[in-house]
Amino acid sequence: MSNDDPTEAAASDAESASAEGKVRGIPRRRLFALGGAAGALGIAGVGGGAAGYAVRGAQEKKQSAVHLRYPFRAEKQQGILTPAQDNMYTVAFDVTTSDRQALIGLLEDWTVAAEQMSAGDLVGGAPDANAELPPKDSGEVWGYPASGLTITFGFGATLFVDEAGKDRFGLTNKMPQVLKDGVPKFANEAIHASESNGDLLVQACANDPQVAVHAIRNLTRIAFGTAKLKWGQIGYGRTSSTSTEQETPRNLFGFKDGTNNIKSEDADGELDKHLWVQSGDDPASDGWLAGGTYFMARKIHMYLEIWDRVSLAEQEDIIGRDKRYGAPQSVAEPATDQEFTPIDFSAKNAEGTPAIDARSHISIVAPEHHKGAKMLRRGYNFTDGNDSLGRLDAGLFFIAYVRDPRTNFYPILKTMAQKDLLTEYLQHQASALFAIPPGIGTGDTMIGQKLFT
Amino acid sequence: MSNDDPTEAAASDAESASAEGKVRGIPRRRLFALGGAAGALGIAGVGGGAAGYAVRGAQEKKQSAVHLRYPFRAEKQQGILTPAQDNMYTVAFDVTTSDRQALIGLLEDWTVAAEQMSAGDLVGGAPDANAELPPKDSGEVWGYPASGLTITFGFGATLFVDEAGKDRFGLTNKMPQVLKDGVPKFANEAIHASESNGDLLVQACANDPQVAVHAIRNLTRIAFGTAKLKWGQIGYGRTSSTSTEQETPRNLFGFKDGTNNIKSEDADGELDKHLWVQSGDDPASDGWLAGGTYFMARKIHMYLEIWDRVSLAEQEDIIGRDKRYGAPQSVAEPATDQEFTPIDFSAKNAEGTPAIDARSHISIVAPEHHKGAKMLRRGYNFTDGNDSLGRLDAGLFFIAYVRDPRTNFYPILKTMAQKDLLTEYLQHQASALFAIPPGIGTGDTMIGQKLFT
Repeated sequence: MSNDDPTEAAASDAESASAEGKVRGIPRRRLFALGGAAGALGIAGVGGGAAGYAVRGAQEKKQSAVHLRYPFRAEKQQGILTPAQDNMYTVAFDVTTSDRQALIGLLEDWTVAAEQMSAGDLVGGAPDANAELPPKDSGEVWGYPASGLTITFGFGATLFVDEAGKDRFGLTNKMPQVLKDGVPKFANEAIHASESNGDLLVQACANDPQVAVHAIRNLTRIAFGTAKLKWGQIGYGRTSSTSTEQETPRNLFGFKDGTNNIKSEDADGELDKHLWVQSGDDPASDGWLAGGTYFMARKIHMYLEIWDRVSLAEQEDIIGRDKRYGAPQSVAEPATDQEFTPIDFSAKNAEGTPAIDARSHISIVAPEHHKGAKMLRRGYNFTDGNDSLGRLDAGLFFIAYVRDPRTNFYPILKTMAQKDLLTEYLQHQASALFAIPPGIGTGDTMIGQKLFT
Repeated sequence: MSNDDPTEAAASDAESASAEGKVRGIPRRRLFALGGAAGALGIAGVGGGAAGYAVRGAQEKKQSAVHLRYPFRAEKQQGILTPAQDNMYTVAFDVTTSDRQALIGLLEDWTVAAEQMSAGDLVGGAPDANAELPPKDSGEVWGYPASGLTITFGFGATLFVDEAGKDRFGLTNKMPQVLKDGVPKFANEAIHASESNGDLLVQACANDPQVAVHAIRNLTRIAFGTAKLKWGQIGYGRTSSTSTEQETPRNLFGFKDGTNNIKSEDADGELDKHLWVQSGDDPASDGWLAGGTYFMARKIHMYLEIWDRVSLAEQEDIIGRDKRYGAPQSVAEPATDQEFTPIDFSAKNAEGTPAIDARSHISIVAPEHHKGAKMLRRGYNFTDGNDSLGRLDAGLFFIAYVRDPRTNFYPILKTMAQKDLLTEYLQHQASALFAIPPGIGTGDTMIGQKLFT
């Protein structure tokens, strides 16, 4: 169904290997050698001769992790169902021109550059040493593999209308009702406007942080004079799995996060129901957004110092899961294979009280308690240094992709803000909502082409 | 010589595998399977069945990259000659107690925790589910491999004397002259005191950013009431190789950086000459610092937007190397195997002018032009978001380890600040100097034990 299917990434690499006798610059002979090194690293008693293998092996494997390459043109945009990469740099731009043609030109230039970078190429190809103009690509990943780079684009409410409600680029009649409605206010939030929303969204994800930074830097450079960076967030340690092949990672509270997430392997019907905008959902945007989705981000500061003073038993009661294995508290004896055991909210413990507190995080956000509503979570941990009191400025850059935030996100966050035991340890500091058009077709010249035609 | 030798890391893993039949939690059977997957990923025409391998293979290799584990107790501290890991989180603490015993207690507690974390264990071991006290470890890397974590400790000038020159902990008579002298002022710098120096240094490096953040977070937590974070810097994309086994990475100007670096494979004599403090270097600190080194960091903001407007030929003239391969400009035909060709500063080009500009970066910093002085560079790229004008706040967190900064760093930086063509594109914004004691012996209870006895 989706072109995020890893089969295609593998096929893409295989084709490349077939055509060039190598995979992204590494001679095939060397790649064969890696298999041996991988084995050697794990085998006991390989002796002193393994020293070189240990370093080289580790380097090579890291390199292989970065060899994933996803096709830029596909039915859906990459970076949504794509197996969540290790690193993220997500930014919003504000458009500084009032010229519709200049905006279209930017989106066309971004499309060309994004396709080149996704393929592991330089923007504009190898530079001419004799050119008087500067190189089109800044060069800091010259010769680096594609590293599973995905670049995902979105459109914000302010691209359609300015603060005074004026139509900026003749797009108002196609503005989605979801963007018109905007995100409601929630309890206990302290949203900084300067770090929220924006006209254009770019989410870059990759298995090498330098590759993600390079992508944002070069798109920023292309936008000079047309759009400028409003805010950006760098994330590490993906906090959700988007594929059943991935292990569930931990958030900064030390718990496995995203266990109960939508996965790319879910049936198409489930994805259509919860993730992809369907034809007929919204007459105004039907022509360009059907098949797309909505991006909803929340920058959530986590009070780590306070959380770290809570006992293990209380931490587990707040989350509703065992910390070691991620098993729901309805499981009597948590073990490594019980993370995905279905949650039984009616289970009682020995004292006859509910095994899972009704105000625990997993109970508050459970689809069972929200008319079955699910979301595709794709967030990352962040650490932005420390404040003047020496406390870490850290937390979760929460990202969800949903068919409609009015049914699949706001009601859940509202309940969470009011009742979730976890809320005491969190503060939402930024918020971002963008419409994500479907993927770029073979003949398209720009992302979101149907919005402008 | 050095216990940073990767042989020991490999041996350590091998022993672990031998003892437990697995490497850091992965059954040996699965590790053997990895070798096959590694091969499969690189082979053309593996067909649709390879899809699982592609994702799983990439995951496994990433995991293997994180399986490196370095012994915490060694002749030298880790994180200096250790092959530079992918991620860094370096912080400084200010001690808030005036009690010498409390300071010693902190260093003892840090030593225990650092040894546990370096081994891939939780601080304090697995937590007791019934304990009323909170878990000793925050848990966000529970079950994660050691990821090549190294934690390197240092002591700053202000640990010895306060601003009024008063002896804080009875250490003044052991204060190194290098710390007394401090770092001189240089041209064109704009140093922020709040992001510079500090009482205690902790440099955490790992092949998983979450592992580095976890280390700093837990050491910060242990320090509560005794010391607090002053500043911190997160880095990615190591900008130097410290082993000949590593490929030279690129900095944010797009050039290969650190080609002409000290490497762990260099002869012991070279390392003793340039890197390690020798007995007799400084009578005051001889008893505790001989065999150690000095840590010198400079947070260097790079004016990326300006650099990006410079033509390729001019960029290469400024650096003195070809951008694609990193070959010195004295090489007539740059190619992939000429990065390490010795630089010939007397070479002329066809017009009879010097092939390498005397004000180029490689000429300015060349050991040949500084009485042979070398340093071990170990810096990282950083990107801390963007400013209100939409420009990236990015650059290089330069780190060098040297035997004596007065001979091996200040003269080079002085020349660079005054004459280097590159300086126009840089601004030094923070500076940090720390004395790095040698490694922790088998019977030691704390880092820098000889300073306190």
